[in-house]
Amino acid sequence: MGKLIIGIDVGGTKVAGGLVTQKGRLIESQIVPTHADKGFRKSYAQITNLIGRLLSAAGGADNVKGIGICAPGPLNPKTGVILNPPNLPGWRNIELARMVTREFGLPSRVENDANAAGLAEVLFGAAVGYKDVFYVTVSTGIGTGIIINRKIYHGKNGIAGEGGHVSIDYHSPYRCGCGTLGCIEALAAGPGMARRARVMLEQEHGLSSVLRDLVGGHAEQITPLMIQEAAHDGDRVAKAVLDDTGFYLGVWLAGMITLFDPEAIVIGGGVSRIGKPLFDKIRETIPGHTINGFATETPILPAKLHTNVGIYGAASVFLPAGEEAGT
Amino acid sequence: MGKLIIGIDVGGTKVAGGLVTQKGRLIESQIVPTHADKGFRKSYAQITNLIGRLLSAAGGADNVKGIGICAPGPLNPKTGVILNPPNLPGWRNIELARMVTREFGLPSRVENDANAAGLAEVLFGAAVGYKDVFYVTVSTGIGTGIIINRKIYHGKNGIAGEGGHVSIDYHSPYRCGCGTLGCIEALAAGPGMARRARVMLEQEHGLSSVLRDLVGGHAEQITPLMIQEAAHDGDRVAKAVLDDTGFYLGVWLAGMITLFDPEAIVIGGGVSRIGKPLFDKIRETIPGHTINGFATETPILPAKLHTNVGIYGAASVFLPAGEEAGT
Repeated sequence: MGKLIIGIDVGGTKVAGGLVTQKGRLIESQIVPTHADKGFRKSYAQITNLIGRLLSAAGGADNVKGIGICAPGPLNPKTGVILNPPNLPGWRNIELARMVTREFGLPSRVENDANAAGLAEVLFGAAVGYKDVFYVTVSTGIGTGIIINRKIYHGKNGIAGEGGHVSIDYHSPYRCGCGTLGCIEALAAGPGMARRARVMLEQEHGLSSVLRDLVGGHAEQITPLMIQEAAHDGDRVAKAVLDDTGFYLGVWLAGMITLFDPEAIVIGGGVSRIGKPLFDKIRETIPGHTINGFATETPILPAKLHTNVGIYGAASVFLPAGEEAGT
Repeated sequence: MGKLIIGIDVGGTKVAGGLVTQKGRLIESQIVPTHADKGFRKSYAQITNLIGRLLSAAGGADNVKGIGICAPGPLNPKTGVILNPPNLPGWRNIELARMVTREFGLPSRVENDANAAGLAEVLFGAAVGYKDVFYVTVSTGIGTGIIINRKIYHGKNGIAGEGGHVSIDYHSPYRCGCGTLGCIEALAAGPGMARRARVMLEQEHGLSSVLRDLVGGHAEQITPLMIQEAAHDGDRVAKAVLDDTGFYLGVWLAGMITLFDPEAIVIGGGVSRIGKPLFDKIRETIPGHTINGFATETPILPAKLHTNVGIYGAASVFLPAGEEAGT
């Protein structure tokens, strides 16, 4: 069956790891807490313990081709250095790939989590059969991955593909955490959706909405999931918020089609689970906002990998088509 | 010296052609009118006559490696088909590469003019030494070319890299010819600049400006060149228009850096000749509108190839680093 690959997905709260075959089958997976609040040393110990257990499960290092690690950016996949991710306080210019290689005597690479997820969707998920794909994950933030010829496009400093921070409205009242006004992340990710619902309810006190009832008047407690459910039940405010979200994503993706003319777009992440109403609005919006005459033919696909997308993604950087990603 | 390449630059009013060595030296060039108003047959005859004369100048087809032709889009460089360029009425689904190959018995390729110019800047111009470059030409429109690993990125249908039609303001009052609201082309190309000057003068009748005097009150006659000259002379309206143009371009290029993390950006075209005041404003605007922490280190370079950029560009698709562009 060839050698196995260890995929490690480092998140702010948990680290997931698994063994992936070269055909993309996950044969073992484990989860441990990150303990990010206890600083880098502790989190690093969590990661290396997990790798150690996965190596045992693999029957030893001889059966393992490499260790792929994905983490939130910014990080540089070319050098294997984690720069300073907001979700991992205390991690600053950490030479993670080098440390892991030294510790286990196996090749190791790090990759941005959205890039890795995009590559995984191309290798084993929704975009199998395509080679030039724009991947998006919409949840509490918006991450993107640019896959060209079945490899991740990294750019000069390894931080290309931060499409969630491209503005579609430079004089928007909403400033993103990155400092930019009107980033698609500020407009269409989970917190942006919740904020729009809150603003609508606050501006129109007479407006009846199950959202108001769900949070007992505490509009700051509205979540994207509540919006999804309320919209499903026909709530007018929730439906308007979903509609706007689809519109913003559509305008933005229209621009991405204008730039990349991709074979397909794949949309994953929690917000994408809203499904049809969101995808319909996105697909309806795109053609009026791009010069690309083939835009209506560009498949806008829901992601296929969910729970373990991070493990698959991390392992992908050691799989044949992804392998040159770091070069 | 190796074989020569014929480069043909088809524009709405003239066709320029030349012989380029494999080291990128232009050793012969000629210009003929396109006669676009007389239809495709006439323009095609103009092109083939020019190619014939360049073949003679080269000492025959044996000394020529190929014929590269650049033209305004939309066109498909992968198939060599010109789709339906607005500037060339009557050209519709023209299999130009195939026709030229058949007529002259030499390999022939077509390329979008902005893509070709971008490649030429990488091979012989401002971006020599770089391989991942975002190229922009700002004149009556805004064209862009995405150069990755010293090759043009084409996308699925061959129409990637239409960055001029990416919106930075989805609710802008200005609709681009492509149908999109707030495209950077609608905001920052020559006609957009002239329109802003006109609007300023019309809204404030008391505003004194040499622009008003230059056109004798006929604000619709204001040109970008007038704005450039008036700004140089300290005119307040003209300076405000230049400033806005640099700001818009800066916001937009910030987004391109966020996406591509390029080694360099090259800006060419008539409007770019404004030079320092425009480039300063662009460079000043970028850092506040991108998440890319290296943006201030990304060189924003003025183009080096001017008069013959189209010939160089067309020839580039047959030069070593550009050669795989069509694949």
